[in-house]
Amino acid sequence: MTSEAGTPIQTPPPISTDVLIVGAGPVGLFAAFEAGVVGLSCQIVDTLERIGGQCIELYPDKPIYDIPAIPSCTARELVDRLMEQCRPFDVPIHLSQRVETVRQREDGRWTVTTGQGLVFDTAAIMLAAGNGAFVPQRLALPEATTLEERQVHYSVRNLSDFADKTVVVAGGGDSALDWALALRKVARRVVLVHRRNGFSAVASSVDEMRRAVDAGEMEFMVGSIAALHAPDDKLASIEIRQIGGTAQIDAEHLVVLYGLVADLGPIANWGLKIVGGRVEVDTSNYESSRHGIFAVGDIANYPNKQKLILSGFHEASLALRKAYTYAYPDKKRVHVHSSYDAGLAERIASGSGHHE
Amino acid sequence: MTSEAGTPIQTPPPISTDVLIVGAGPVGLFAAFEAGVVGLSCQIVDTLERIGGQCIELYPDKPIYDIPAIPSCTARELVDRLMEQCRPFDVPIHLSQRVETVRQREDGRWTVTTGQGLVFDTAAIMLAAGNGAFVPQRLALPEATTLEERQVHYSVRNLSDFADKTVVVAGGGDSALDWALALRKVARRVVLVHRRNGFSAVASSVDEMRRAVDAGEMEFMVGSIAALHAPDDKLASIEIRQIGGTAQIDAEHLVVLYGLVADLGPIANWGLKIVGGRVEVDTSNYESSRHGIFAVGDIANYPNKQKLILSGFHEASLALRKAYTYAYPDKKRVHVHSSYDAGLAERIASGSGHHE
Repeated sequence: MTSEAGTPIQTPPPISTDVLIVGAGPVGLFAAFEAGVVGLSCQIVDTLERIGGQCIELYPDKPIYDIPAIPSCTARELVDRLMEQCRPFDVPIHLSQRVETVRQREDGRWTVTTGQGLVFDTAAIMLAAGNGAFVPQRLALPEATTLEERQVHYSVRNLSDFADKTVVVAGGGDSALDWALALRKVARRVVLVHRRNGFSAVASSVDEMRRAVDAGEMEFMVGSIAALHAPDDKLASIEIRQIGGTAQIDAEHLVVLYGLVADLGPIANWGLKIVGGRVEVDTSNYESSRHGIFAVGDIANYPNKQKLILSGFHEASLALRKAYTYAYPDKKRVHVHSSYDAGLAERIASGSGHHE
Repeated sequence: MTSEAGTPIQTPPPISTDVLIVGAGPVGLFAAFEAGVVGLSCQIVDTLERIGGQCIELYPDKPIYDIPAIPSCTARELVDRLMEQCRPFDVPIHLSQRVETVRQREDGRWTVTTGQGLVFDTAAIMLAAGNGAFVPQRLALPEATTLEERQVHYSVRNLSDFADKTVVVAGGGDSALDWALALRKVARRVVLVHRRNGFSAVASSVDEMRRAVDAGEMEFMVGSIAALHAPDDKLASIEIRQIGGTAQIDAEHLVVLYGLVADLGPIANWGLKIVGGRVEVDTSNYESSRHGIFAVGDIANYPNKQKLILSGFHEASLALRKAYTYAYPDKKRVHVHSSYDAGLAERIASGSGHHE
């Protein structure tokens, strides 16, 4: 690979590890601890910007009652406790990284790349990705796909791209209101479209939006996006379905902010056996149909699977013992109770998980 | 049934419950909590005199590091936390009760009896009995069996039974020393026999024993019990194997105090498929070969089973969901996250698990 000036660009060397854990939710964090316990190095990647996974995104402060020996805790407290537990092993966590491709090499090890350019060289892969990566909910219109990135957007990167344009913003949550309010300052015309005259956004944003509408700085319309008209593959107008009829808005841009949904994403293309959006595993070691790739927690599927956090903990523990045989095929690991493992106790007590 | 005087004896009515949990260790206690969560009543029985099971018996104060989200706790703390967690469901715990017989009735429910006279009528049985019941380690001599209870003892009930007799006490731990010292006050002659001149008892007991030997109040002999001579099925003398020879002691009683060992006990005769001393289960619901009887925690066996406390928690959770179908075959239970179950939250918050 060469740069424009013709000098070679240094591709960073792959990050080598025993186990790549995909997902920094409770199960991924406990898997990192257990990896340390059984003597495996690991790295964690997560698509989100912070640790904690779905339970931090969806219910950070609701009490959880069914973590064994913890009568009540919030998701936030659970994640804090798990972070404290795996701290002795000093596990690198790569946030805002979405795993994209996987390739098994001839020596059995795996090369995994992220959309953001990281490359991992790992003996085993542990999918602890919950219900998958959180991605923006897409518009359910086939014509939207070809316009994506150019005129149909699921996030706003540069406000200046919308300068002096007519922009329709669809959605009724915080993101939709915040971006509509911001866009009104640069765009020629901004129309917020939401299916009802009521919002799941903070009251102050709703107030500000209503004032902006009253002041003529933007418009609000109750309705839903029914169709996009794009002659010559260029967005010309947007059809809005309303009670008792339709409206038409001539617009250059549509920004859809319907919130996030979970999606297996690129993992769906890894050649794993997938049933009902979840990865089929063998309950003796929670290994997928591709040996060396494991699935634990909510992303895993097997007969009578329950989406319980505590099940993910168990699954990760068993999976890591099998993963060990891929990382160290010649060693035989003997399980010892954590109370009896003097070396482990020393590492945990000293706050350092490094070991030879 | 009639008493000697001919009047009918009231047999107490069986205790009716949805699930009978056998074992009050960490897994049994968490199973009781989960039973409450899924809406099942339960009762716990344990052979020991106190709750906590093996981990309280063997290592009450050693730190445990691998309970998820609890970076470090002792067995005692773990049991306290689990007791707090299941308190809202107010689960009856029957200690010093050893399950003996099991019988499945025509309606599918089970009648379970204990050696101490309790009778349970239950929809399902959850074996969470760890490595089994703790029982005294027996003498490995066939001739000891017929003398058991009469002249060969594994515990001392009444000191007066040994008045003016010759008693051999075998063992080198606290029980052996304490009972030898106590027996010397009533018996005609007491001989302590241990395989080496060193003891696993507290120093003060060892000192006291050595003083008693010096004072001629009892004897100590290095050696092991090699044979019992019992003409006419009555113990006459005990052969002691020593380095370089054997000794013979004429004695009426032998008290063997070799410590406790785990044993499946009567469960081994319940018709379950048992491999390597553990109950074979299906990993989709941790059910044994007799449907309606489940095995979770260390007593369970399946491919790649790890004796981890956290595995027992998972196993119990899945098993209880299947147990539910035996208790309430006509209801369909929908799993909800504990955070979302308003009724559960209310019961836990109010400290009362009673529900209609």
